[in-house]
Amino acid sequence: MIVLHPSIIVTMDSERRILRDHFIGIENGEIRYIGKEKPAETEEIVELPHRMIVPGFIDAHTHVAMTILRGLKDDADLMEWLQKYILPMEMRLKPNDVYYGALYGITEMIRSGITAFLDMYYHEIEIAKAVADAGVRAVLSYGSADVFFNRSPEEEFKIAENFRMELEKLARERDAEDRLFFAYGPHSPYGCTKELLEIFRDESRKTGYRIHIHLAETQSEVKQIREKTGYTPIEYLNSIGLLSDKVMAAHVVWVEDKEFGILRERGVHVLHNPISNLKLASGIAPIPRMLGEGINVALATDGPASNNRLDMFREMHVAAIIHKGYNRDPKIVPAKTVVEMATINAAKALGLNNIIGSIEVGKKADLVVINLKKGPHGTPLHDPYSMIVYALDQSYVESVMVNGEWLYRNGEYVKVNLEELREKVQGIRERLMREAGIS
Amino acid sequence: MIVLHPSIIVTMDSERRILRDHFIGIENGEIRYIGKEKPAETEEIVELPHRMIVPGFIDAHTHVAMTILRGLKDDADLMEWLQKYILPMEMRLKPNDVYYGALYGITEMIRSGITAFLDMYYHEIEIAKAVADAGVRAVLSYGSADVFFNRSPEEEFKIAENFRMELEKLARERDAEDRLFFAYGPHSPYGCTKELLEIFRDESRKTGYRIHIHLAETQSEVKQIREKTGYTPIEYLNSIGLLSDKVMAAHVVWVEDKEFGILRERGVHVLHNPISNLKLASGIAPIPRMLGEGINVALATDGPASNNRLDMFREMHVAAIIHKGYNRDPKIVPAKTVVEMATINAAKALGLNNIIGSIEVGKKADLVVINLKKGPHGTPLHDPYSMIVYALDQSYVESVMVNGEWLYRNGEYVKVNLEELREKVQGIRERLMREAGIS
Repeated sequence: MIVLHPSIIVTMDSERRILRDHFIGIENGEIRYIGKEKPAETEEIVELPHRMIVPGFIDAHTHVAMTILRGLKDDADLMEWLQKYILPMEMRLKPNDVYYGALYGITEMIRSGITAFLDMYYHEIEIAKAVADAGVRAVLSYGSADVFFNRSPEEEFKIAENFRMELEKLARERDAEDRLFFAYGPHSPYGCTKELLEIFRDESRKTGYRIHIHLAETQSEVKQIREKTGYTPIEYLNSIGLLSDKVMAAHVVWVEDKEFGILRERGVHVLHNPISNLKLASGIAPIPRMLGEGINVALATDGPASNNRLDMFREMHVAAIIHKGYNRDPKIVPAKTVVEMATINAAKALGLNNIIGSIEVGKKADLVVINLKKGPHGTPLHDPYSMIVYALDQSYVESVMVNGEWLYRNGEYVKVNLEELREKVQGIRERLMREAGIS
Repeated sequence: MIVLHPSIIVTMDSERRILRDHFIGIENGEIRYIGKEKPAETEEIVELPHRMIVPGFIDAHTHVAMTILRGLKDDADLMEWLQKYILPMEMRLKPNDVYYGALYGITEMIRSGITAFLDMYYHEIEIAKAVADAGVRAVLSYGSADVFFNRSPEEEFKIAENFRMELEKLARERDAEDRLFFAYGPHSPYGCTKELLEIFRDESRKTGYRIHIHLAETQSEVKQIREKTGYTPIEYLNSIGLLSDKVMAAHVVWVEDKEFGILRERGVHVLHNPISNLKLASGIAPIPRMLGEGINVALATDGPASNNRLDMFREMHVAAIIHKGYNRDPKIVPAKTVVEMATINAAKALGLNNIIGSIEVGKKADLVVINLKKGPHGTPLHDPYSMIVYALDQSYVESVMVNGEWLYRNGEYVKVNLEELREKVQGIRERLMREAGIS
């Protein structure tokens, strides 16, 4: 048994215990022991003074391969950004580009302590390969949008099904069935026809797979859906019978009074992307009210083209301050709640809370070692939640473990060569810009 | 002449030139050369491939010594926070505590590329000593508040005057007259009597020293001043004749329509603290309108008890996204404007734009070297402003120079021992908590 001995463990267990001077024992990728005494079965001990161990963060909504498109155009109107910059580049993405973009994004995630994520993109199997190679954990969905691609609902669903089969095959081949998970990915109420949404509803009921969807992100979406269906986006999905506790809905910025009850009753999981929502001027999601109503809210970065980082520390910080300032109440969305949104709530959203999201015996050893003495911000130490959310940043992450395996140790990547990857990604970016005629 | 040769120079000069593959020559603490060719007088050349040099950031409003109080109590009601936590600790601060708190805060600033700041606190001469020792630049004001301290306006002013004389003596003794500057520091419209504000008005007109004040930070301040004077805080100071282009006003969150004209006509400099304003739930300052009206807006962290960092990267990021989301316009407060707020605008606010705030021949060599290959976020590179504001963080700061002297080089502090300082600050914090009976 490998044993870690940090100063502080932020467990995020059901009692939210903060343990001081405890040992964590790990065997076969799982947490097997947590206690005050060094376990008898200790084979290797890692002493971690002035270190805090937290559960691996879970990025509950992203498009990880978009590292390739980071900073292509900022401070722009959403439609100009999409149509003149993002789409002409995405059209030219080759499968291998997506693989490298994803692997690069995952190295960035690991550095900020993200050990699992929920993704939606195209060539999604390439992202699965990157996840398999990088050693992290992910729930992957193919972005299905028959409206955008001018395909029939049946054709569009078949692509998602093909991806599912490819993914399951890859997971078996790579012995990664505990790291690679599938979800349906109907893009949004406006990207899919009603017929396609109905197919996903029926299939999800049959198979139990979760549904990952963008929902009520912008006012223009609300307007468009209302004009098309007479309903708001949330009402529309509810009228179809799509909403359930299998639904992971990203953004959910525009929620009318009566819709909070719908979200709560259906058990929809809300994936909150505060940085993207602010930067793209989508708005400020009513998170305090959702939390008050008992809706499960997870935290997410969105893609690195609209963030422009895959950094859970920045996301936690913005999530903690934005609602206080906007609602003029300094007590709402406290630091502890924010850490919950980045760990156990996200695990619940992804349906993986039986294996990740907290540090407990029987769960996978997905752990982040934070060195409080890496720089000045870790002192003085008082409340660990406040320290994580308000004072620290990603540079305090010293080591990261998934399934008991170190992926990042003492500031070095174990499985990837960052320099090689950087050259790859820069080359892909330059090629795409040339091809798309963007300067 | 020492010559730096980076890939990119973000000059922030009047044309906002971005220079690629240029040389910067430094002599006697000043920038003496900027050009495409290596200067003939080169004595030492520092090759800086894939590095970006930016002007030292200027933190235009802080209480730097409050590192000691960081994370003492977060997510609390403002009055509870102040009265039950902050004030009982501050009452017990000894001069030496303030010195160490400030020196610690300055090391934190340096790490994020801050080379100059504007401060207001008590035992302010201790902060001056820390500035002298650390090698940075600062405008320092004693927090004058006859209302809070139950002193006569004359007594209160005398304390500020004493501080001015002590500061000038220290600056001469330490040969730091180009690094230590004085400003008056009437705390706020509610912390000072009208008589004291009038004294500062008259003295500022006579001596030319600037005035540093908190203004229109919270709705309760507006209410309180209106009840007391019949005016809003901005109108009140204007009615006294205090407002001028010598006034550096922190926060300015609550501004009525007619008050934008007052601020513009008087030439008041606004010091914007977005993180503190959000975290303490003060509100969201109307920065886009101020910028549109031509009011000079500088960026600032506020004190580390209410932030909880002294980090210009985080501040720039939040400044760039908050106004977009709040006003639902993705084009406002673009990245370039944010970098202006953190450099040249702040230099103007502090009255130091003749010596700092941009990279130009004749200005002081206050420079920040950013290593784009320190981690994954620096790739792909497109627009340097966007890169700084949205993608990078303080961990990409590799070296920092003030007056041509390296204070931080290749990630190591040149003049301070961080580990010793950390122990000092942790010890002071624990002592104060014991004395104040806070657990």
